[in-house]
Amino acid sequence: MTRWKLTIEYHGGPYCGWQRQDGQPSVQQYIEEAIQKFSQKEVRIQGAGRTDTGVHALGQVAHFDLEYREISAHDMAKAINAHLRPQPITILKAEIVDSEFHARFHAKNKLYRYKIVNRYGPLSVDQGLAWQVWKPLDADAMHKAAQLLVGTHDFTTFRDTDCQAKSPIRTIDRIDIKRNGEHITMEVEGKSFLHHQMRNTIGSLTLVGEGKWTKDDLQDALDARDRTKGGMTAPPDGLYLVRIDY
Amino acid sequence: MTRWKLTIEYHGGPYCGWQRQDGQPSVQQYIEEAIQKFSQKEVRIQGAGRTDTGVHALGQVAHFDLEYREISAHDMAKAINAHLRPQPITILKAEIVDSEFHARFHAKNKLYRYKIVNRYGPLSVDQGLAWQVWKPLDADAMHKAAQLLVGTHDFTTFRDTDCQAKSPIRTIDRIDIKRNGEHITMEVEGKSFLHHQMRNTIGSLTLVGEGKWTKDDLQDALDARDRTKGGMTAPPDGLYLVRIDY
Repeated sequence: MTRWKLTIEYHGGPYCGWQRQDGQPSVQQYIEEAIQKFSQKEVRIQGAGRTDTGVHALGQVAHFDLEYREISAHDMAKAINAHLRPQPITILKAEIVDSEFHARFHAKNKLYRYKIVNRYGPLSVDQGLAWQVWKPLDADAMHKAAQLLVGTHDFTTFRDTDCQAKSPIRTIDRIDIKRNGEHITMEVEGKSFLHHQMRNTIGSLTLVGEGKWTKDDLQDALDARDRTKGGMTAPPDGLYLVRIDY
Repeated sequence: MTRWKLTIEYHGGPYCGWQRQDGQPSVQQYIEEAIQKFSQKEVRIQGAGRTDTGVHALGQVAHFDLEYREISAHDMAKAINAHLRPQPITILKAEIVDSEFHARFHAKNKLYRYKIVNRYGPLSVDQGLAWQVWKPLDADAMHKAAQLLVGTHDFTTFRDTDCQAKSPIRTIDRIDIKRNGEHITMEVEGKSFLHHQMRNTIGSLTLVGEGKWTKDDLQDALDARDRTKGGMTAPPDGLYLVRIDY
């Protein structure tokens, strides 16, 4: 039995998310089926974390075990990719790893990116790949306010009311928000996050960007530990799971 | 009669190109129909230049004349955009211009960008938005060789054999090729270009990037004034008409 690690890119648009769900197309299901097609073995792959419907990944990680003929890492990636077409899912890298490696439990750091296009006109080239916000946003004010979220906090205000995690306590190691022309990008790093935490965070930070909230209002929202005190849940289109470090 | 200038963004994927063609969906046709829907007037819009099937625009320019009630520039853009949905075509800006303004004849400078993703794995998030080249490319070598194309030359080697332009002589004012991780971007500026000139140029430059051609080979191809001596025509997916200056 060989344990394989996969690094995976996908366009989230066509899928119900990473995780298998009955009767709905998921990224996990397509990759499992692609492996089965060439190996004739039924496998279950374990992702580092779920992504929601419509959320993209540039570097999702998963592992699986397979008893199969000797095959190079490059050929493994090639075989899975060949059977994934025409799905917009790509194995960027396949690696043989230690049988103890666990995609979810051994993840030390995750990097997420959220893309806003801040302009009047609806998206065309970027359709499904960013969130269009027409009210002018002050990205510097968003960046400054966001710094109060760095560190270990109770993020109840920023997690989905359906979030299954036992604890609402998480640690954010870095948040950076930058403007480049009409594009505003938020990057967030930490070991793990709550359900909808990125989308709820950027939803609240846009209130700061619009000038509706001060930094103190954001602090009050965090302190309230109450989802109804937070801003809207931003759409999934702008969210990317960029990288996972082990 | 008021002359309007439009700055337009579109995803080239669904269209036969900018220009109207019988029985095929074009960007021009959708914009003309959108204007007609709210104004009840039949208009013909004049683009600054054609873009081919699948080529994208971030800043195409067009003009048209309309006799209509007084309307602000913002409301004009909004009205056209409203009637363009769900097409991935966006009016970024509408402006009232002098009745002498001509989108095509008065264009002083055009900026095109070509995006390559240089990696083994097929595209997923960028599908239709870049050209995936799996052979490793030396972007510095491409940039250096490309400099010999700057200036005024007979570009017969780099124009489509069906190109309708009277003269194959054009002037390139700037070519820059840069790598950023797996992304390689070519930017080209000049007053006007030949049919397929960008796609044929990047097709030849990738031969330099792969190490198959030296700078001298590129010079020989240019000097040959013969399309069959040039590299392949790169796919339209990676090409963007970025900006037109007047």
